[in-house]
Amino acid sequence: MMMMTTAPLYPNPTGYTVAVLGATGVVGSLIIKLLEERHFPIKALKPLASKRSAGKAITFHGQAVLIEEACPEAFTGVDIVLASAGGSISAALVPEAVKRGAVCIDNTSHFRMDATVPLVVGGVNEEALVGHQGIIANPNCSTAQLMPVLKTLRDAAGLKRVIVSTYQSVSGAGKEGLDELRNEAENDFTNGKVAGQSDKFAPSQYERTKFARPISFNLIPQIDVFATEGVEAGYTKEELKLIHETKKILNLPNLQITATAVRVPVLVGHSESVTVDLDRPLSLETATQLLAETADVVIANTHEGYFTPRETAGTDPVYVSRLRKDTSNPETGLNFWVVSDNLRIGAALNAVRLAEALHRLKLVRVPSLGCV
Amino acid sequence: MMMMTTAPLYPNPTGYTVAVLGATGVVGSLIIKLLEERHFPIKALKPLASKRSAGKAITFHGQAVLIEEACPEAFTGVDIVLASAGGSISAALVPEAVKRGAVCIDNTSHFRMDATVPLVVGGVNEEALVGHQGIIANPNCSTAQLMPVLKTLRDAAGLKRVIVSTYQSVSGAGKEGLDELRNEAENDFTNGKVAGQSDKFAPSQYERTKFARPISFNLIPQIDVFATEGVEAGYTKEELKLIHETKKILNLPNLQITATAVRVPVLVGHSESVTVDLDRPLSLETATQLLAETADVVIANTHEGYFTPRETAGTDPVYVSRLRKDTSNPETGLNFWVVSDNLRIGAALNAVRLAEALHRLKLVRVPSLGCV
Repeated sequence: MMMMTTAPLYPNPTGYTVAVLGATGVVGSLIIKLLEERHFPIKALKPLASKRSAGKAITFHGQAVLIEEACPEAFTGVDIVLASAGGSISAALVPEAVKRGAVCIDNTSHFRMDATVPLVVGGVNEEALVGHQGIIANPNCSTAQLMPVLKTLRDAAGLKRVIVSTYQSVSGAGKEGLDELRNEAENDFTNGKVAGQSDKFAPSQYERTKFARPISFNLIPQIDVFATEGVEAGYTKEELKLIHETKKILNLPNLQITATAVRVPVLVGHSESVTVDLDRPLSLETATQLLAETADVVIANTHEGYFTPRETAGTDPVYVSRLRKDTSNPETGLNFWVVSDNLRIGAALNAVRLAEALHRLKLVRVPSLGCV
Repeated sequence: MMMMTTAPLYPNPTGYTVAVLGATGVVGSLIIKLLEERHFPIKALKPLASKRSAGKAITFHGQAVLIEEACPEAFTGVDIVLASAGGSISAALVPEAVKRGAVCIDNTSHFRMDATVPLVVGGVNEEALVGHQGIIANPNCSTAQLMPVLKTLRDAAGLKRVIVSTYQSVSGAGKEGLDELRNEAENDFTNGKVAGQSDKFAPSQYERTKFARPISFNLIPQIDVFATEGVEAGYTKEELKLIHETKKILNLPNLQITATAVRVPVLVGHSESVTVDLDRPLSLETATQLLAETADVVIANTHEGYFTPRETAGTDPVYVSRLRKDTSNPETGLNFWVVSDNLRIGAALNAVRLAEALHRLKLVRVPSLGCV
């Protein structure tokens, strides 16, 4: 598509001052790329990162923009913050930004379950943005990609029970996760560790820094730390995020839901094997049609036309395939396979979409300070 | 452990004549290794394979044994056949072996659901061996490793519903599967295809012969072909094997069970994320204790002590970890993670154990021809 425009895209004098917190990370750099690609109206971009990166430049709309150190004063004059630098950094800096009048779209888990903070997936529950108090939370990647699908099923036939097993790529752990898989796999080849067959598989010789176990040619059924109390004892925080965030976003506080989250040796793209019990029967034909009509969802139209993470990484949709009756509950059950680029709808794309929704709904600025 | 014996281990004049059909395959060669390691009483070993391998030698108990071409006449004088050369070969040759008086332990899916053929996991349902008609079926790898665990739960609290998502290694597809993952991953490194990050991941340049999609740094939610009829439409045969074989082995024809089978870039070791609804409540403490007492099962005693396929490949047990309440059914539900070497309990080890059980129970020889 040709863009026929004579106006400079950046700086856009009628746009916003936008800070990206964690600008050098995997998600932060993709946020900046998507802000550019999607022509978000920006008067001034402020890439913020640690002191180590301050003074380096990134390129935005063909222009060099200097990275500044993330600190409370950096948010002065900022309209929108897209934060993706980790939970403790958001905990410290997001309130400082809000205090200075910015609306913060936070990609960390820190504020997600706060009752005063809307937890929003673009196109799914944007109505929750109305009345925000300055902070909007972006859900966990494994939650976000499920939401367009579960929302459509909820609206069509009611959701009773959801059982999810995830297959999550290493990019969910950022650059360090990507590096660890690449380096460990390369090390395995260098040291002849992939020659094993039926004999005991030679252990990895790579010194890990990010994951608790080898990830190369392996699976790690742990993402984040373990809960130890009550019915949730033995669940990882990642699994609990998926469980609690889904209930909040879909406004189904009593939904029966469980999850098992597993790290797999894939670079980009999360996959999920999902079983749902619906309140009412829903034919495969109707479910397929409704999902085909759902924004952001692409559904396979043949059994063989299923989707894989490697083949879809770098694209925006949520891909649904393997949709079929649940043989353990043929009346009201469905099984399906959901794949999406975890860095996009699960993180950077949803963050940018939330900024677009705030702009469209005229919800930029903290309400107590007056809307733009 | 020192073996203090003066008797020659092979040939053992009071042992059996044992044919291994598919002797050059991943499973067949492990069967031969396990027959040796476990001191199965063998008078003569007959490794059988395709014409291409005939005349080559394998080593058994330190002696060279020539591979013969698999054909009906090769079974003359054979007491026990361990067959692992593919369904169509078993379909053609196993009846020929039975006709000649051999008992066949068949590792393919061909005879498994035949009502006259016992489908047996050693230690789980060996009573089904009694009254065999010459053929004993060894279940699918993804089924076998679940059986000791589900049997214990069935006996303790009744099984109502089972939901399984698998993470299956490429060795389940034999040597060709192992080669395809190794070659494709090496090719990715050579061609710089693992450098991708948030951008569209570069497609594999490797020419595949075994899998329908790239398996290196990817997942393939298809194992075996798709069923197209009735409630099972859209299931793969691998998923249906797990469903139907579980019902048969556990003698629970009305069990509510479903499965999603996914190939993952792991060399050896299948993993499964399992959700079960029990008939009656079972505390985590009791479930843990009962599984710890179950033959062949090793259960983690801390949350962090979970098992991974790479770290357990080459060993015999079924490893259970991540055992916890199912938050979608806290009263009677459990979730857990099962890992096992698919080539062992899922194939070669179970085959050898069934031969041992037949020997112990004096069930070698087809009954109509008289027992040994």
